[in-house]
Amino acid sequence: MIKVQFAAGWPRWKQWKHPLSLELARAGLEAELSRKHPPGQVDYVVYAPNPDMSDFTAYTRARAVLGLWAGVEDIVPNATLTQPLTRMVDSGLREGMVEWVTGHVLRHHLGMDAYVVNPERAWQPFAPPLARNRPVTILGLGELGAACAEALRALNFPVTGWSRRARTLPGVRCLSGEVGLSEALEDAEILVLLLPLTAQTENLLDADRLALLPQGAVVLNPGRGALIDDDALLAALDEGRVGHATLDVFRTEPLPDDHPFWRHPRVTVSPHIASETRPETAAKVIAENIRRCEAGEPLLHVVDRKAGY
Amino acid sequence: MIKVQFAAGWPRWKQWKHPLSLELARAGLEAELSRKHPPGQVDYVVYAPNPDMSDFTAYTRARAVLGLWAGVEDIVPNATLTQPLTRMVDSGLREGMVEWVTGHVLRHHLGMDAYVVNPERAWQPFAPPLARNRPVTILGLGELGAACAEALRALNFPVTGWSRRARTLPGVRCLSGEVGLSEALEDAEILVLLLPLTAQTENLLDADRLALLPQGAVVLNPGRGALIDDDALLAALDEGRVGHATLDVFRTEPLPDDHPFWRHPRVTVSPHIASETRPETAAKVIAENIRRCEAGEPLLHVVDRKAGY
Repeated sequence: MIKVQFAAGWPRWKQWKHPLSLELARAGLEAELSRKHPPGQVDYVVYAPNPDMSDFTAYTRARAVLGLWAGVEDIVPNATLTQPLTRMVDSGLREGMVEWVTGHVLRHHLGMDAYVVNPERAWQPFAPPLARNRPVTILGLGELGAACAEALRALNFPVTGWSRRARTLPGVRCLSGEVGLSEALEDAEILVLLLPLTAQTENLLDADRLALLPQGAVVLNPGRGALIDDDALLAALDEGRVGHATLDVFRTEPLPDDHPFWRHPRVTVSPHIASETRPETAAKVIAENIRRCEAGEPLLHVVDRKAGY
Repeated sequence: MIKVQFAAGWPRWKQWKHPLSLELARAGLEAELSRKHPPGQVDYVVYAPNPDMSDFTAYTRARAVLGLWAGVEDIVPNATLTQPLTRMVDSGLREGMVEWVTGHVLRHHLGMDAYVVNPERAWQPFAPPLARNRPVTILGLGELGAACAEALRALNFPVTGWSRRARTLPGVRCLSGEVGLSEALEDAEILVLLLPLTAQTENLLDADRLALLPQGAVVLNPGRGALIDDDALLAALDEGRVGHATLDVFRTEPLPDDHPFWRHPRVTVSPHIASETRPETAAKVIAENIRRCEAGEPLLHVVDRKAGY
């Protein structure tokens, strides 16, 4: 009997218990899913950061720690975690992200807000350019960034993608490295941040890089709050150099009531809803990884601790 | 020398003169484009409704009247127009419409307005269902409706399409006829109106049909204002049976300042910008039709006067 510890916090247990048990059975595994196995007997740990669990030392025979989140910046620095760590690559999370990014890119492309909020009842017909004339840049071409690039390309947007390691995506101008980053920013009428948060990407969008964007560019951040230097962004918004920022993630969440983002007329605060891991699809990914490990196959989505993602 | 009369009104002349002359030349035609040919010498009339031109009687040798608009309900009833009439099928118009419809479907699907307008600064994370669990219905599967259906399907929305004549589109549940219409409405969490305006479709969305929609459904109308019974829609919005209406077209445009749509909290007024014919792409369509007619080939996009489109 394979012992699977659910160590992702009590509130998630209700949401995950049934789909995860179901998928373990569907994968043909004789597994016992619980929150209360004695740590020394546990074979696999299903994990998300939570107040009750931060020390992996006692999980001496655990063959893997299977993360429920796409972002692992809060897990990677944990020195007690010596087991192989996987991150979540979930089709539900990916689909939700594509929908949020495509929706907000179109919202800004079409200038929707002028009609949603129109207290003067102004009839001001102004047709936007076609998407084919609206360059969009995505920073980060992982699972999520690549899927968003593909969806935007299908709507005719000229898409530039940037990633640390060089990548190739059909129909997308792919850039990498420091020079590539400048080029990617210079073109971005709409900029989407989907980078992992690492020591290298923290404050990546700072004053110097914001200055490279075209006048009036729109910044969308469904990635991680700390990718942006908040003060630099506020300064660029104040001057109108950045036309609007739609932010879904923040250094502190919920965003404190006195944070200037809440009151800035050029900022839309979205409460970390761009996408979330969906138990009904993500449970399959956990079960498949346990099946693979039991069968002696390599784990999927293993985190590179040095790279940080 | 082929004489082409531009009879679409003075304001459009500036916009069309150059692209149209260019495309006529590119099509290999020796054509003279003017606003002032004597009517009896004109071979082709390029037309959109305008105050200076409503009588086609004098155009005795015109081989076709080439419309600049996708909707021809204002032209079809003109008894002096006996020449073959074509309507505009323009890739620019189609692309713009796909962008507007996809953008507003995603806006409502994601519940964006709650974050765009949030004076209380409420942090209320609520992730919407995935698009694959959000049924969308499109009424009208012509050039524009079919393109929108395809774009929404690519984003995983389950799409139902309805048209007067039975149609087939890959991945889209296609319905037709009166029974099909009821079925299409019963399922529509988001409803998109892209029907031509004819005697049969005027007031199509009346009180009885609005009552078939699921509670809280969203209505998008980028088609024609008169497809909807305004009073019935307002009553359904007052009761919350229809959750929101985003309307781009109206019986009277600009929408009069005292129209209740302007002040209704569940209505977004969009000033007839969903899409427009784009001279740079549409001029090619006009030139191609003249080339075909000169070569003895059948005209494209000929209006069926009886059907009205």
